[in-house]
Amino acid sequence: MLDFDYYIPTKIFFGIDKIEALGGEIKKYSSNIMLVYGGGSIKRTGIYDRAVKILNDNKINFIELSGIKPNPDIKNVREGVVICRKNNIGLILAIGGGSVIDSAKAIAAGALYNGDAWDFYTEKAEIKSALPVAVVLTLAATGSEMNGNSVISDDIKQEKFAVASEHLRPKFSVLDPTYSFSVSEFQTAAGVVDIFAHVCEQYFSPVKGTYVQDRLAEAIYKTCIRYGRVAVDEPTNYEARANLMWAGSLALNDILSYGKYGDWACHAIEHALSAMYDITHGAGLAMIVPKWMEYVLDKENAGKFAEYAKNVWDIRIADETEAAKEGIRKTSEFFKSLKMPSSLKSVKVSKKTLDLMAQKATAGGNIGAFKKLSKNDVFNILDSAF
Amino acid sequence: MLDFDYYIPTKIFFGIDKIEALGGEIKKYSSNIMLVYGGGSIKRTGIYDRAVKILNDNKINFIELSGIKPNPDIKNVREGVVICRKNNIGLILAIGGGSVIDSAKAIAAGALYNGDAWDFYTEKAEIKSALPVAVVLTLAATGSEMNGNSVISDDIKQEKFAVASEHLRPKFSVLDPTYSFSVSEFQTAAGVVDIFAHVCEQYFSPVKGTYVQDRLAEAIYKTCIRYGRVAVDEPTNYEARANLMWAGSLALNDILSYGKYGDWACHAIEHALSAMYDITHGAGLAMIVPKWMEYVLDKENAGKFAEYAKNVWDIRIADETEAAKEGIRKTSEFFKSLKMPSSLKSVKVSKKTLDLMAQKATAGGNIGAFKKLSKNDVFNILDSAF
Repeated sequence: MLDFDYYIPTKIFFGIDKIEALGGEIKKYSSNIMLVYGGGSIKRTGIYDRAVKILNDNKINFIELSGIKPNPDIKNVREGVVICRKNNIGLILAIGGGSVIDSAKAIAAGALYNGDAWDFYTEKAEIKSALPVAVVLTLAATGSEMNGNSVISDDIKQEKFAVASEHLRPKFSVLDPTYSFSVSEFQTAAGVVDIFAHVCEQYFSPVKGTYVQDRLAEAIYKTCIRYGRVAVDEPTNYEARANLMWAGSLALNDILSYGKYGDWACHAIEHALSAMYDITHGAGLAMIVPKWMEYVLDKENAGKFAEYAKNVWDIRIADETEAAKEGIRKTSEFFKSLKMPSSLKSVKVSKKTLDLMAQKATAGGNIGAFKKLSKNDVFNILDSAF
Repeated sequence: MLDFDYYIPTKIFFGIDKIEALGGEIKKYSSNIMLVYGGGSIKRTGIYDRAVKILNDNKINFIELSGIKPNPDIKNVREGVVICRKNNIGLILAIGGGSVIDSAKAIAAGALYNGDAWDFYTEKAEIKSALPVAVVLTLAATGSEMNGNSVISDDIKQEKFAVASEHLRPKFSVLDPTYSFSVSEFQTAAGVVDIFAHVCEQYFSPVKGTYVQDRLAEAIYKTCIRYGRVAVDEPTNYEARANLMWAGSLALNDILSYGKYGDWACHAIEHALSAMYDITHGAGLAMIVPKWMEYVLDKENAGKFAEYAKNVWDIRIADETEAAKEGIRKTSEFFKSLKMPSSLKSVKVSKKTLDLMAQKATAGGNIGAFKKLSKNDVFNILDSAF
């Protein structure tokens, strides 16, 4: 186990009607805020009206930035930064899923930076401060509601990068599982795969002796397996939505990675994929993760995959490599049971673009930590996922 | 799953030499502190000298309160409160295990209260504020380093009560696993049982639908089982000490109980026991927990015990009651393998005092939540543990 400094100060208000906490909590920071959301589904579900009423009742001024799209673009971020500066905004309230939250974080950092917010994502600048961010979550997936991560795309350059900073960790997040009742089958399933993949990235690590962290990780894996299909089939099943929503936050609030570090190759590959194609992140991961597992499995690391097979999938095969293979097969089957795509071809990716994708994923050098991957390795994984 | 508000703002500095964080962190709050510790083992191990050097190097004044004993007494707390008030103390630094930390918390609250600190423990007064508390942990057991709980005894009245308040949650804690290398076999084992019992109290709950919480709980159970005996046999095994130390904090920092509530009958019974006899808390729990399990097991809750047996002890018996019994047998065996006492008689408890003990444990009414226990029930459990 490695040394670590733990600090997760985000408050979580979890449960039905917890949105009522908004008024009192926001006013601790500002009474002049920006409200960021996506394509308007929060208007259909009534969450928007409810939030607006709470803001008005609490005399909190707000300016809106709507239309944040999936795989959010830096263009909207820049727009938000300008509005924040002009209007002396004191807090950014994101109502939505990962794309909306990640955009709010980018705007929050950009508003206090004398330059272009994209600099943070290209490592030209470090985030030194940010406006406070608050969240009303509508989708269990990215865990952005409880961590300091933000992933933004540049659609023109076809690039997609992540940044992490303690300054971006939301001050508080409202997690009302009923707000995810209206999430589509496809988005629900993609969210479950995203959560599952976050656990994979941290579980498969070269750091030894992290027994407690790895057992905690298995708790999240199992929760995805237990409730993934249930939430797809019964969208208003509170138990399933609640367990998945809390699991999504725990999967990437750093609790699983304190004392170790993750691999993150699958995410780098998926970001290259969804930078070039309009593919939902979780769906992209569903195609890549099992192929990554198959590709990196070797004699040396078979024990870790066998541990995964035994503890997560209850596979009792003595031979480590055989157990590992069965665990990977189960993973792939699970994603298929969620009706996620299983080949790049099926989502109309052109085979000709795989090389460029591999190049983009490894633009900063080899990726991965559990196993280091070169551009050629990434190409092979993409090719096997085709 | 129940609604919950999550907030765990304690910073953790985990790893070798993390004590160096003391200077900078303490000065955020005060440069005039009280240093609380126990019987002087921190002087033998060198932790005291190192802490004092850091305080001096950082020009932090400190007054000492030493001699805190296991099952800490309100007498020392009162003494500490007087010193704090007289010297305008701004932070209390506890160096030790649960007894020292719990005393520091009691002093922290007492110093800002216009009355006797014991009032908090007898529910005569509510904790409304407290001085900031910081911790250097030397023993994996109570989890007090990351929660708002404090347990204090009144030796004269032979009472032992717990209090919980967000004001008591330490601002930060230093967890250096090497500081637990010198903990004796017996205290190491008692600490492991304490951690294990904390998980039991939260795992066995009447609240349904807490799948993710229960899998997280199993991660801590398994860590106790994996490393308990290892730490006893190889006291300087870093991997074992590190996993147990982090598991101890996670077992009772509330992460396992958000969304549900616990039973806590075993703790109430043990507190009655160790209020009357000088018994180490974990050793007391080792005698009580398996007997509690046997006593409360019935047809209705056998499923939960069978889940415990399967997921924690890998017991594959189809019949729920039989599986449950085997899980309980394994629990008992585990505590015995740690050389914990398994009967009250063996630690010189008089059979005549069991009735009074049961009366003390249920002085506030029936106890427990997974199963409500009357005074008579508690007597029966104590009698079977005799």
